[in-house]
Amino acid sequence: MYHIYKQKNFIRMWVKLNNRKHKLKVLPNKIVIEVKEDENLMSALLRHGIDLGGVCGGKGLCGKCLIKVVEGETSATTVQEKKWQEASGFQFRLACQTRILSDAMIEVLETFVGSKMQILSWIVEKKFELEPSVKKLSLNIRKPSLEYQEADLNKILEESKVHVFDPKILGKISHILWNSNFRVNVIVYDGELLDILPQDLDKKIYGIAFDIGTTTVVGYLYSLDEGTLLSVKARYNDQIKFGEDVISRIEFAGKSGENMRLIQEAIISTVNNIIEELEKAVNISHNQIYDIVCSGNTVMTSFLLGNDCYYSSKAPYIPSFTLPIKCKARDLGVRVNQTAYLRTLPSISAYVGGDVVADILISEIYKENGPVTLIDLGTNGEVVVKVGEKFLATSCAAGPALEGYSIRSGMRAVEGAIESVTISEDCNEVYYRTIGGGKPVGVCGSGIIETIAWMKIRGIINKTGKIVEGSSKRIFRENGELQFLLAKENETANGKKIVIAQTDIRKIQLAKAAIFSSLITLLKLVGVEVLDLRKLFVAGAFGTYVDPFYAIIIGLLPDIPRERFIQIGNGSGAGAGMLLLSKKKWEEAADIVKKVKVVELNLVKFFKDEFINATYFPHKNENLFKNSLEKIKHL
Amino acid sequence: MYHIYKQKNFIRMWVKLNNRKHKLKVLPNKIVIEVKEDENLMSALLRHGIDLGGVCGGKGLCGKCLIKVVEGETSATTVQEKKWQEASGFQFRLACQTRILSDAMIEVLETFVGSKMQILSWIVEKKFELEPSVKKLSLNIRKPSLEYQEADLNKILEESKVHVFDPKILGKISHILWNSNFRVNVIVYDGELLDILPQDLDKKIYGIAFDIGTTTVVGYLYSLDEGTLLSVKARYNDQIKFGEDVISRIEFAGKSGENMRLIQEAIISTVNNIIEELEKAVNISHNQIYDIVCSGNTVMTSFLLGNDCYYSSKAPYIPSFTLPIKCKARDLGVRVNQTAYLRTLPSISAYVGGDVVADILISEIYKENGPVTLIDLGTNGEVVVKVGEKFLATSCAAGPALEGYSIRSGMRAVEGAIESVTISEDCNEVYYRTIGGGKPVGVCGSGIIETIAWMKIRGIINKTGKIVEGSSKRIFRENGELQFLLAKENETANGKKIVIAQTDIRKIQLAKAAIFSSLITLLKLVGVEVLDLRKLFVAGAFGTYVDPFYAIIIGLLPDIPRERFIQIGNGSGAGAGMLLLSKKKWEEAADIVKKVKVVELNLVKFFKDEFINATYFPHKNENLFKNSLEKIKHL
Repeated sequence: MYHIYKQKNFIRMWVKLNNRKHKLKVLPNKIVIEVKEDENLMSALLRHGIDLGGVCGGKGLCGKCLIKVVEGETSATTVQEKKWQEASGFQFRLACQTRILSDAMIEVLETFVGSKMQILSWIVEKKFELEPSVKKLSLNIRKPSLEYQEADLNKILEESKVHVFDPKILGKISHILWNSNFRVNVIVYDGELLDILPQDLDKKIYGIAFDIGTTTVVGYLYSLDEGTLLSVKARYNDQIKFGEDVISRIEFAGKSGENMRLIQEAIISTVNNIIEELEKAVNISHNQIYDIVCSGNTVMTSFLLGNDCYYSSKAPYIPSFTLPIKCKARDLGVRVNQTAYLRTLPSISAYVGGDVVADILISEIYKENGPVTLIDLGTNGEVVVKVGEKFLATSCAAGPALEGYSIRSGMRAVEGAIESVTISEDCNEVYYRTIGGGKPVGVCGSGIIETIAWMKIRGIINKTGKIVEGSSKRIFRENGELQFLLAKENETANGKKIVIAQTDIRKIQLAKAAIFSSLITLLKLVGVEVLDLRKLFVAGAFGTYVDPFYAIIIGLLPDIPRERFIQIGNGSGAGAGMLLLSKKKWEEAADIVKKVKVVELNLVKFFKDEFINATYFPHKNENLFKNSLEKIKHL
Repeated sequence: MYHIYKQKNFIRMWVKLNNRKHKLKVLPNKIVIEVKEDENLMSALLRHGIDLGGVCGGKGLCGKCLIKVVEGETSATTVQEKKWQEASGFQFRLACQTRILSDAMIEVLETFVGSKMQILSWIVEKKFELEPSVKKLSLNIRKPSLEYQEADLNKILEESKVHVFDPKILGKISHILWNSNFRVNVIVYDGELLDILPQDLDKKIYGIAFDIGTTTVVGYLYSLDEGTLLSVKARYNDQIKFGEDVISRIEFAGKSGENMRLIQEAIISTVNNIIEELEKAVNISHNQIYDIVCSGNTVMTSFLLGNDCYYSSKAPYIPSFTLPIKCKARDLGVRVNQTAYLRTLPSISAYVGGDVVADILISEIYKENGPVTLIDLGTNGEVVVKVGEKFLATSCAAGPALEGYSIRSGMRAVEGAIESVTISEDCNEVYYRTIGGGKPVGVCGSGIIETIAWMKIRGIINKTGKIVEGSSKRIFRENGELQFLLAKENETANGKKIVIAQTDIRKIQLAKAAIFSSLITLLKLVGVEVLDLRKLFVAGAFGTYVDPFYAIIIGLLPDIPRERFIQIGNGSGAGAGMLLLSKKKWEEAADIVKKVKVVELNLVKFFKDEFINATYFPHKNENLFKNSLEKIKHL
């Protein structure tokens, strides 16, 4: 049974002391970790390829390497561990602080077993029946003679049980049929014959789900034969050069037809580059890709299809279209099989788009009674609230800072990015961890959040987000601006220092205020207190990696117990993948669009005040973050 | 009531003598010709803009300027007229030989009233209801507000009562709607929204019917609002450089993908050039053209759509497809509105194509009990025979000679082409007439036929087609080959002499033998004597201009009474036009395809002998042309 919360599952492992007879019965296919005497668990796990994401080098400072001990004797809890237990309210151990005294059984967050890719991949592994729109059929065609002169196409259509075909196949149909001795495979898309292939050359068929984000575009390559995810590739959206958020891009696109052409060309080129990377990763040809499903906000979807959103950017905010669009990929210049379709998800309004529909599909929030919410942490942030029959959604311009863009030392969450950070109690040491484990190049979204959270914990920034001069040896001023040094020139891969500057903090402040105030506004409209939320689904590529613990500290996410958070990963991309693989899910998507009511924040009187209150770290109203503020005192 | 035989109608005219009180009652809107005293009728008609097509300059030699006298006194019949009456078996007068002695009423073949274009245009003027696939609707769209935020596209689809739309319109839909104050026209094609236009800029919409011949391509521009033909343009098919007949082109195309690309590119470029000429002729934009229907033989249709016909050229002659094809014109690179469709007619077999279906539609031969036949005089000639329920068709390679191609001085039937010829009794004078009336540049199909017919009449060629040396002062030998001089260097527009060479005669001989023997073969298969044919429909661009009188003399058409011939003009182009304007006619076309049985001439034992017999002028079996051979003795 597929479960979208699988990410939060713990995986059980058997730990046995080296050179001893172990007492525990090890089940087949279970993970067994051998521990050397006096070795701490983190080292042992690392030797077995399991990296729990520790930042501080085993000093017990970062609180990352948490495990649960189910059975067996272990060393006593250390002072560092006690601090973290206090801060989290959760009786875990830190692997770097724990030694095994007998054979034992422990549990580790599944997230850490395997690569990061798995986090994104499990989402569409199970739960729905595999029923892609594209199917491959094997046909055995009757051979012709002077007495049986039926045209090749007629016979193939009849055997395929379809009436419609893509005219692009007319040039090759007979060559393939005759050369393969009348045994062929055909590719059929919802009643339309797309392609014909020789049967002995049994080529696999593929589809790609795209999450077209304002800042980041992610492509997921799926096998349509088996429904499995084979590769994921991401790039910044080339459109960023024309504006960092949707509003500035709409302004640019609306100025001229040529500008609109550039905007569309930018996203098509991003998409084509990702397709090329995906093809290389699994060594297939673009001819084998027969279907594309694109999820994105209304503006990104519109740009992809050549629409400039000019009228949807002004009151009364009328979108050009909200229907799901289906077109031939070739008509957009997308380089896959020439007969392939490209589809986009339905939108809800001019600013609540197909990406939210995808998030809702993946989270299944529509099945909840609530109060529950869903937050998509993207450049265009979206918030959905469901309480009983009330189902509201809105969007807000968070900007690209959360995705590492527009930040001085920011970068995407790729190899070399500082993704996790701890600052020592004396405020002078910084412990960090990079994606890939090598020298750092920059800092990605989660690294920025953790840095700012630690700056808040250590008092390096104050409530208003201002860097407190003299609070750390790492603070310096350059070109008149206060900055906090994350990594010195000699530590980095490119010899450039990595910093968090005052303006970076301001950008994060505006982003988190936009999202938190949108949430509070929707909740107020339905009369629900934020601390009463039963569940909070966090979506967005960035949302996958950010630790709610730190997101709460800076006031990006509400201060509810950790177990109520459900990170659904890149819901937009995962939803697109689900729609790629399941015809039935399109009906659910159409249903969601009808049920959700959109709130225009500009029309809500108290929204502006909420926004200003939310710019504080964590919030002007500290009662909302009482729990968190209490916890961090222990660290 | 539309009538496809209208071309054969005579138009009645009132003729009155100048300065006299006329006795006849002239009806309103009737043509009145005033004749000066002692003026012959040809001069008078020419003064009134009516050119009967005389070749010999009023000497009564060419027999072209025939009229009927209905009432009134005229001068006595001349010796020349008596010869022609004997030859034709028809008591007409020659206008150049006739003077009016009282007010009179005459009849003139309607063909001559107006330009040649009319010959092509009347065909689809009436008879069926105008019901094009493309329609223009006027919509008044509800204006949006903050309370009514329905997306623009949704509203337009609802008002248009369609669910499908071309994604290419997504970029402009809102701009047009908002800028035209929500009053728009939409273009709908069979349930698909193609375009949206501001209502105050009420643009007309157009469609083009193409006859894609092996040698000549003709485009007919129609108003889809009114169903009227507005312009006709023709060009040689650019594919000719890759082979003159379908077989040599199939060989070329089959050699490589690159060759196929060149073959397709050639026809697309021909089509695009014709579209450009049509647009210029009526001063419209390519954006106003929303539909294209292409008629052609199976090979031409296949090439247009990128298929090389490789397998259909070998036994058992299996076509890749015979279904009607519908695709976006943009997918072929055809430059019309980007949302326009291009459709091709259904074919019957690998060599009996959509052009024949079009001919059958236009001639309505399927409604006849017979015995009737239809002959399409093209490079790929087609013959259809209907007797009771028997409905046979075949095709033959006639080559491009009948269309003036591959002939030493040959050219298309355009301005400067010698289209009509007479040779004097002493064999030394040649009278000719050019299209446009200026100096000649070359000779077109009908001119070649008439020249060879007169060479036969005057004994300049013998029964086997050999030029008889010494029979005319115009015979000369150049590079070892006998040639007949049609026009000297100083008579022509470009200073080059115009000739009919022995090899030209051989090419015409093979062409006419192919067509006549195909006809005889089909008739033998259904047990009908050629002279028993009730009707013979002649189709093809060339078939429009050729005079059956001369076609019989050389043995191209059978020796049946003139009134049994019905020239339907370019049936292929006219049929395409009818399908452009009438959705219902597509059903009739589909029905025709099911009823017609194709005969493979190669499989008919006696065909080869029939072919050899038909290479003689007029035929080896002179009994088949007894009537004609008798007539020409009088000339």
